[in-house]
Amino acid sequence: MKKVKGGVCAPLGFLASGIFSGVKRSGRKDLALIFSEDEATLASVFTTSKVPAAPVIVSKKNAKGGVAQAIIANAGNANCATGAQGLKDAKRMVSETAEVLGIAEKLVLVTSTGSIGKPLKMEKIIPGIKKCERLLSRRGGSAAAEAILTTDKVRKEIAYEVKVGDKTFRVGGNAKGSGMIHPNMATMHSFITTDVKISRATMQKMLKDAVDDSFNMITVDREMSTNDCVFALANGMSKVSVGGFMNGEATKLFAEALRAVCLYLAKEIARDGEGATKLIEINLKGAKSKQDARAAARQVAGSDLVMAAFFGRDPNFGRILASLGAAGISLDPNKIDLKMQGIPLVKNGVGLPKNMTKAAKKLKSKEILVEIDLNIGGQTATAYGCDLTYSYVKINAKYHT
Amino acid sequence: MKKVKGGVCAPLGFLASGIFSGVKRSGRKDLALIFSEDEATLASVFTTSKVPAAPVIVSKKNAKGGVAQAIIANAGNANCATGAQGLKDAKRMVSETAEVLGIAEKLVLVTSTGSIGKPLKMEKIIPGIKKCERLLSRRGGSAAAEAILTTDKVRKEIAYEVKVGDKTFRVGGNAKGSGMIHPNMATMHSFITTDVKISRATMQKMLKDAVDDSFNMITVDREMSTNDCVFALANGMSKVSVGGFMNGEATKLFAEALRAVCLYLAKEIARDGEGATKLIEINLKGAKSKQDARAAARQVAGSDLVMAAFFGRDPNFGRILASLGAAGISLDPNKIDLKMQGIPLVKNGVGLPKNMTKAAKKLKSKEILVEIDLNIGGQTATAYGCDLTYSYVKINAKYHT
Repeated sequence: MKKVKGGVCAPLGFLASGIFSGVKRSGRKDLALIFSEDEATLASVFTTSKVPAAPVIVSKKNAKGGVAQAIIANAGNANCATGAQGLKDAKRMVSETAEVLGIAEKLVLVTSTGSIGKPLKMEKIIPGIKKCERLLSRRGGSAAAEAILTTDKVRKEIAYEVKVGDKTFRVGGNAKGSGMIHPNMATMHSFITTDVKISRATMQKMLKDAVDDSFNMITVDREMSTNDCVFALANGMSKVSVGGFMNGEATKLFAEALRAVCLYLAKEIARDGEGATKLIEINLKGAKSKQDARAAARQVAGSDLVMAAFFGRDPNFGRILASLGAAGISLDPNKIDLKMQGIPLVKNGVGLPKNMTKAAKKLKSKEILVEIDLNIGGQTATAYGCDLTYSYVKINAKYHT
Repeated sequence: MKKVKGGVCAPLGFLASGIFSGVKRSGRKDLALIFSEDEATLASVFTTSKVPAAPVIVSKKNAKGGVAQAIIANAGNANCATGAQGLKDAKRMVSETAEVLGIAEKLVLVTSTGSIGKPLKMEKIIPGIKKCERLLSRRGGSAAAEAILTTDKVRKEIAYEVKVGDKTFRVGGNAKGSGMIHPNMATMHSFITTDVKISRATMQKMLKDAVDDSFNMITVDREMSTNDCVFALANGMSKVSVGGFMNGEATKLFAEALRAVCLYLAKEIARDGEGATKLIEINLKGAKSKQDARAAARQVAGSDLVMAAFFGRDPNFGRILASLGAAGISLDPNKIDLKMQGIPLVKNGVGLPKNMTKAAKKLKSKEILVEIDLNIGGQTATAYGCDLTYSYVKINAKYHT
């Protein structure tokens, strides 16, 4: 598996573009188009929010067919809490995109991200879609990755190339997300492309598995968004077949590459959490069930008190224990072991305050590893988060609605 | 119902004291004793944390008898994650208190609050308990209320006097809590005293009801503590009987006074949330079930993004809608109405951005009222929270462990 350039355009047959259409006040790129030359098998995961945005409703319907060829995505306005007008606008984004690309409407997915409750500036979006189509190119991956960002500081994209026998396939992806990050069976936005040939059912299962261990294990602020979605498009142009009896090796390698793409993007989102200065990895083992392991790891990663302690380089194991105690999981308080940056801080549930000075020194790092062993079972999970800083408050107290 | 002075000492027969024993580095009061001259009926509610502190384990056992006469409470150290030594220390606090007061050990409750994972300084606590006993007085309520605080900025105490027929009874209480506030079937510390005569079962039921609508509806940071507990002691010295067939009026008045004490203290905790500048009240109606109403109100009150928006005086209804969508409750996104400080911002699920400037001006207030109507049922709930500020991060990034 080799890392390559190009992001969502690394796989064969994918073109992309990203422009400033006029939605964002900042003048930064705000409209992205991703296009596959051939119809692609589609797997998708959506937010479980009960207040879904208009584009989520529209894309969910189109995703039912299991085939897609284009994604039109705007940033700066989430098109949520916009009522009937919002639904009309999301549908118009789809029909306009289908028209300029000369494809069927049901092959187009639409997403929006940004602030909630204001109508979309369709007078900017419609000409923007035409411009996006004119600019579509094999080199447009980065522009598209940039155009889907909101409060993100950095572009998030990745691609891997994988050899299987004498053939080669690729998996690429981009993502956005910085605040309102606490996915639940879904996530922020991520668009994944690949040129393998794969059935829809296999792709959906593999995407679900990869998302569960990546996007679904990150948290910035325990806030699930109204617009979360992940789309994965597989257009088969590499001629590498995945899934089924004959393709064991390709299937294994593709699953690995897909997981690597999802995990890289998920960690980038946590690292770029609003105001964050550190990436926090919570490595939990010894849980009675997988569900417990996941719940506990996410609970700790999402604790404001734990996050603030890391900002202050405070090896505050007490807050982590408190967080575990509140996670609603099976545990024995007298069996918990905890290490921070390799330094033991809790043994059999009892604090080791003498080690705190040594641990505090190691918390200067930009990447923090917390290892927790519940010692009551064999299940593990890893969650990713970030620290809670003055900047998080600043960004969210001043973000223009 | 008349507000009176004295806090936990307002009811007949209660004495209290609060001193600096040497546990807190700041030199502020850190040890409180509350004593009833007669044995009192006890009702209690404890944290549901699976990592309970040693004093929680010890007090839970003593509370089983349903009778108590004294509470010994230290601040500055939570005596949690302290293993066998911690349990021994908590038991010793009980036995020492029982001895100096000349009462049975099973009549003593013990609580601790503060940082987690370090052994208690028993060489300070033991002489402290003796000193507390010598200083017990009818005027000691405020000193006791002060000695249970940690990061709290203000003392929290209240008392009401109620006439029923030709008799009078009193209900008093104090509380502490500022961070790690997201009670679940329990709460931070609150000690409530009354001189009514009441059965244990009635008292427990009435306390549970009052706690559910007060302490269990506040949140500062969605962090349930390892040490949460509420104790209510009723010593009967007013000769007012509560509960039972004959005492309808007294029962109704006592329930009202108990609720008023709990609600006052709960709101004071939310208002004094770590770093808070505002008290936020989330008034939710039109829910399908009581459980939904409570969950939704708490979800909104506990959202970092909503809290940060209020700090920035940003009438960000979109974040509130997102929060409702993530609350796991029944709702119809097209039926939600929302007002902030009386200004309509969402009607039938659609944002009214034109009203935001007017609403923003009203957010300068120290008390913010958000009214949400789900319009799908008849159930209501109110949750209390605060804003998320730079100071919250500062306090928790610098708090000494």
